[in-house]
Amino acid sequence: MGLPENSGLELYSLHPHGPRNLISDVAGVTVGHKTLNDGADIHTGVTAIFPHGGDIFHDKPVAGVTVINGFGKSTGLIQIKELGTLETPILMTNTLSVGTCMTALVKYMLQRNEDIGVTTGTVNCVVTECNDGSLNDIRGLHVCEQDAFDALSAATADFAEGAVGAGTGMCCMGLKGGIGSASRILQVDGKTCTVGALVLANFGNRGYLTIGGDHIGRRIAEQTKTPEQGSIIIVIATDIPLSGRQLERLSERSMVALGRTGSCCGNGSGDIAIAFSTANRYPHYSEQSILSGGFFHDAEIDSVFECAIEATEEAIISALYHAETTRGIRGNIVRSLREYL
Amino acid sequence: MGLPENSGLELYSLHPHGPRNLISDVAGVTVGHKTLNDGADIHTGVTAIFPHGGDIFHDKPVAGVTVINGFGKSTGLIQIKELGTLETPILMTNTLSVGTCMTALVKYMLQRNEDIGVTTGTVNCVVTECNDGSLNDIRGLHVCEQDAFDALSAATADFAEGAVGAGTGMCCMGLKGGIGSASRILQVDGKTCTVGALVLANFGNRGYLTIGGDHIGRRIAEQTKTPEQGSIIIVIATDIPLSGRQLERLSERSMVALGRTGSCCGNGSGDIAIAFSTANRYPHYSEQSILSGGFFHDAEIDSVFECAIEATEEAIISALYHAETTRGIRGNIVRSLREYL
Amino acid sequence: MGLPENSGLELYSLHPHGPRNLISDVAGVTVGHKTLNDGADIHTGVTAIFPHGGDIFHDKPVAGVTVINGFGKSTGLIQIKELGTLETPILMTNTLSVGTCMTALVKYMLQRNEDIGVTTGTVNCVVTECNDGSLNDIRGLHVCEQDAFDALSAATADFAEGAVGAGTGMCCMGLKGGIGSASRILQVDGKTCTVGALVLANFGNRGYLTIGGDHIGRRIAEQTKTPEQGSIIIVIATDIPLSGRQLERLSERSMVALGRTGSCCGNGSGDIAIAFSTANRYPHYSEQSILSGGFFHDAEIDSVFECAIEATEEAIISALYHAETTRGIRGNIVRSLREYL
Amino acid sequence: MGLPENSGLELYSLHPHGPRNLISDVAGVTVGHKTLNDGADIHTGVTAIFPHGGDIFHDKPVAGVTVINGFGKSTGLIQIKELGTLETPILMTNTLSVGTCMTALVKYMLQRNEDIGVTTGTVNCVVTECNDGSLNDIRGLHVCEQDAFDALSAATADFAEGAVGAGTGMCCMGLKGGIGSASRILQVDGKTCTVGALVLANFGNRGYLTIGGDHIGRRIAEQTKTPEQGSIIIVIATDIPLSGRQLERLSERSMVALGRTGSCCGNGSGDIAIAFSTANRYPHYSEQSILSGGFFHDAEIDSVFECAIEATEEAIISALYHAETTRGIRGNIVRSLREYL
Repeated sequence: MGLPENSGLELYSLHPHGPRNLISDVAGVTVGHKTLNDGADIHTGVTAIFPHGGDIFHDKPVAGVTVINGFGKSTGLIQIKELGTLETPILMTNTLSVGTCMTALVKYMLQRNEDIGVTTGTVNCVVTECNDGSLNDIRGLHVCEQDAFDALSAATADFAEGAVGAGTGMCCMGLKGGIGSASRILQVDGKTCTVGALVLANFGNRGYLTIGGDHIGRRIAEQTKTPEQGSIIIVIATDIPLSGRQLERLSERSMVALGRTGSCCGNGSGDIAIAFSTANRYPHYSEQSILSGGFFHDAEIDSVFECAIEATEEAIISALYHAETTRGIRGNIVRSLREYL
Repeated sequence: MGLPENSGLELYSLHPHGPRNLISDVAGVTVGHKTLNDGADIHTGVTAIFPHGGDIFHDKPVAGVTVINGFGKSTGLIQIKELGTLETPILMTNTLSVGTCMTALVKYMLQRNEDIGVTTGTVNCVVTECNDGSLNDIRGLHVCEQDAFDALSAATADFAEGAVGAGTGMCCMGLKGGIGSASRILQVDGKTCTVGALVLANFGNRGYLTIGGDHIGRRIAEQTKTPEQGSIIIVIATDIPLSGRQLERLSERSMVALGRTGSCCGNGSGDIAIAFSTANRYPHYSEQSILSGGFFHDAEIDSVFECAIEATEEAIISALYHAETTRGIRGNIVRSLREYL
Repeated sequence: MGLPENSGLELYSLHPHGPRNLISDVAGVTVGHKTLNDGADIHTGVTAIFPHGGDIFHDKPVAGVTVINGFGKSTGLIQIKELGTLETPILMTNTLSVGTCMTALVKYMLQRNEDIGVTTGTVNCVVTECNDGSLNDIRGLHVCEQDAFDALSAATADFAEGAVGAGTGMCCMGLKGGIGSASRILQVDGKTCTVGALVLANFGNRGYLTIGGDHIGRRIAEQTKTPEQGSIIIVIATDIPLSGRQLERLSERSMVALGRTGSCCGNGSGDIAIAFSTANRYPHYSEQSILSGGFFHDAEIDSVFECAIEATEEAIISALYHAETTRGIRGNIVRSLREYL
Repeated sequence: MGLPENSGLELYSLHPHGPRNLISDVAGVTVGHKTLNDGADIHTGVTAIFPHGGDIFHDKPVAGVTVINGFGKSTGLIQIKELGTLETPILMTNTLSVGTCMTALVKYMLQRNEDIGVTTGTVNCVVTECNDGSLNDIRGLHVCEQDAFDALSAATADFAEGAVGAGTGMCCMGLKGGIGSASRILQVDGKTCTVGALVLANFGNRGYLTIGGDHIGRRIAEQTKTPEQGSIIIVIATDIPLSGRQLERLSERSMVALGRTGSCCGNGSGDIAIAFSTANRYPHYSEQSILSGGFFHDAEIDSVFECAIEATEEAIISALYHAETTRGIRGNIVRSLREYL
């Protein structure tokens, strides 16, 4: 739902949001969460994002990726960079559970595709992560393969934001972070098109937090600088036909959104952005060598960039807005933004 | 001088500025301008930045570069990327005069280094640019080699900002742009260190301009979207010993500063950032194969990132603040930010 | 013409060459030389490559670039990387004459396009270079703008190889280098398609030279290792519709061809590869935001890679084969490969 | 041991090999294998490479990485790229077992470092892979965490090459592939230094195989082109102090070695090279922000490049030489190179 009207928070936007104000305003995109929260040491989970409802391996969405800051352990990014396609759902989880989720996603894909590893090559599983160790017993490796399957099964167009799924134990700007999402609408060649964003927000230090230009972090934080930690994973979806090169450029613009919210892209922040288009898909098999696809006239692409930036900025603030105050491991308490509004 | 105290404009900064609040607070860095302004069609020029006062070719500052958006015609960047060093002063000019300034810089370097092209290889001349065609008769190619020599000769620690040198004809956010500079101070291992920035600001569209979180662009502009144009060149200097890899990361953070001021890194904006350290230099000749240099402990580098971001943000706003309203080619008038304060 | 049948040199190829065995087997591609050779100190020149015979600025060939080793001063590469298009002919010259050729190419484009710098943005001029200082008085800056115009005017499908144009003063593997070209043919979806290569070969040290697996360099050179110097510029053309991403991958494969001929991609070698497709063009202006273009099914692209590698390998050896023994500045003599066959 | 004297195979080398002719000629580097081979469907395993014998997490070797072709699923690469360090041993396994090995490596690191995930951040586990599906039941996911622990425990300076560890089920150039290693020695500032390489060779199609310039693949293969498949992982170690930037350049040169052996860096080949220096290490914790490290004078680095290329080339051919003919899943037989000598 992004930021509700009555949140009291105002961002500066040129473009309107879509009906759900979620990444799922891009038709076909769905999101599922599995939340692990024992009220004590375990605050973690898995979030799954489906780029479309069909056979992703054989009908690959065109995609691009930017490693804004590479202090991260996500998998599958170098193949997106090389081939410009996505061939699995995207999973999000905590840093030390990436291997488990990767194996689960391998099994999920093998079950649905008998050709993988026999008559065709293997599969590129995209698993992203942030470090939830401030609230979660991350060394306990509590995420198991079934949790990934559960997140995948739970995918739907209407999904929760805040301290859910992979966002359960995340912190952002000294506040409780997590999952946020938003969307923007624009007209392209007389058609209404959508750009949506979903973030796993876990970055930054409190003093810099900026909401719609308001340096609220200054009021929240003692000015003592706490080190920038954590990371952010940004997923941008659109139903506009963009090339892999253009989606890479789109993903890179998310760094502007980070700048607007007060991130300094700190050393220890694994900042990763993935963008995909549901309107451009490459077949895994083809009888013809030469295929045809749509792309955008670069000279007109700024409004698409703006939509991606605005949706990402709102997704970040929405993650903060929806996340509840949480008490986690070692008695650590991380407060909700709403306590400060 | 950056933003003066009485400007009425306030940015959000964690770090104080240096004595000059210019890039030349980094000892040894000097800047020279040659301004071409006939009050009619010609509004262009050249700006030269010296990384230190010695023999740059034989005592190369370590450097890094980020091509934020590659819609640009700057020269010399790929060698900085490969070797991590700078071996000439940096020139700035208009887009179509890059070749002329490159030849001038070649001649300048040949004059001072008899070994180039005979007993050693050639020289990597760094010439950067933005498009000043809205105010300047850029097709007239009015910059000549002597103008580059004049800018190089004029270099000094105290230099003007605004519509001078390469900034004479630039526009930024629908306002008059140009040259801006600022600095930040921080303590490193008990020593006072400096990070300085200088920008050639020519990017963005009016509606998005944000100063210290204030969306002033909204009030200035009719909401009619004008296409994002132009570019920005960002030069960051420091006296902290950073490795080439670290300077590349520093240069990349300037994108955060762009985000703070309202840039969307538009398609047609050639956004380039170069960072160098005066404290780390590589010799052109060496009897020993193995040398030694300083670098920063990555875990502590965030405060350096913050200084670079803050100095770049202030340099951009300072360029706008100092630039005078200008009437140029085809009668175009571009107004100073100060008319709207 | 590539390597003639009677050269006595055999490369290992899976794919046949085209009728000319030149890059101009790709229909529309033409090449022009201007040679400066006074028999004494001046051995340099300019080579121009047209990607097609039409209006390049308004009908941009899709392109990709790889900086194999960035010790180079070529211009225009970062925009190819960002936008995936070429919008001017490609010039080649000596390292210190890049600025002059860039200005000449700016003037050439301004003459033919009244919109540049007025109603549209500027133009990205691609000028590439190698260092011919072993034979040429490179410090004399003997290339003038008219030489660039002459090379552009001279462009034709049938052009000379060896010590001509930009190749006049180049050395390669301790032998006389210069311009070489070759092509390969393959069937795509039942149609005959072409991949062509043109190189400006100026790299490597004699001991490593390998021709078709024969380590001929060992027999030619005393085993005293001379430092690897110079550079290579590689241009690959095809009439197969490839995306910018695919053309970038194609250009990257030229490094394999370098490996086959004995290059180690030495520190001081500016190794640059540019690839473009004549079958995929982007309009400068478009009424529609969404356009459509062809691309290759990645799973079938290996034969295109092979053709690019084979054409590049043959172009390098062809440059050596055609170049005449040359006496240049400081009495330096660099011998033709043919003296050793 | 690399290629034995009596192999009948001769490569063209300028530099001598070290005493073991293995990557472990670089002091401190050790390698361990766990081989899974049931003589029927299971032909896979794990190989572990330790960059030094100490505490890798707190005493990080400087490192660089090149993604030659990104059709691969290796983990941990983007952090090497960002930070220029390695902080775990490197594991190699089959493509679909990366997740399992990643989790095993996480557990291995957690056991040895109580600070990870509590008082410091997380850990970047490097797990690389090739697809052994032609001989191995890769869909069976037969590698378990204990196999990774066993490979780590087995690490030693004297290790086997060929169809062992992760190489058990690999194919290369239509022949049996696997693990290969070699080294080269050079003098630096009067000291004897070492560059070693280890590869997991699984790439290429038979027709192109070239050994020391001999196109042996032509004689082995019917000229029917089989598609290029699989991948190669290349690890380069040295005791020369190189910077992260220089190690990245070193890793990139491995593409030249691939070219020498006949690879075309096919579309489906995940070609990854990692290089590290045992002589340059960064501490995880430091009281000082400014540290000092060694690096190489770039102008002299070509001999280091040559050693890396030669060691990698020999490692690839050595993998082929040592690997035994193997019958695997679906009755597939892949023959040893030695059957064709």
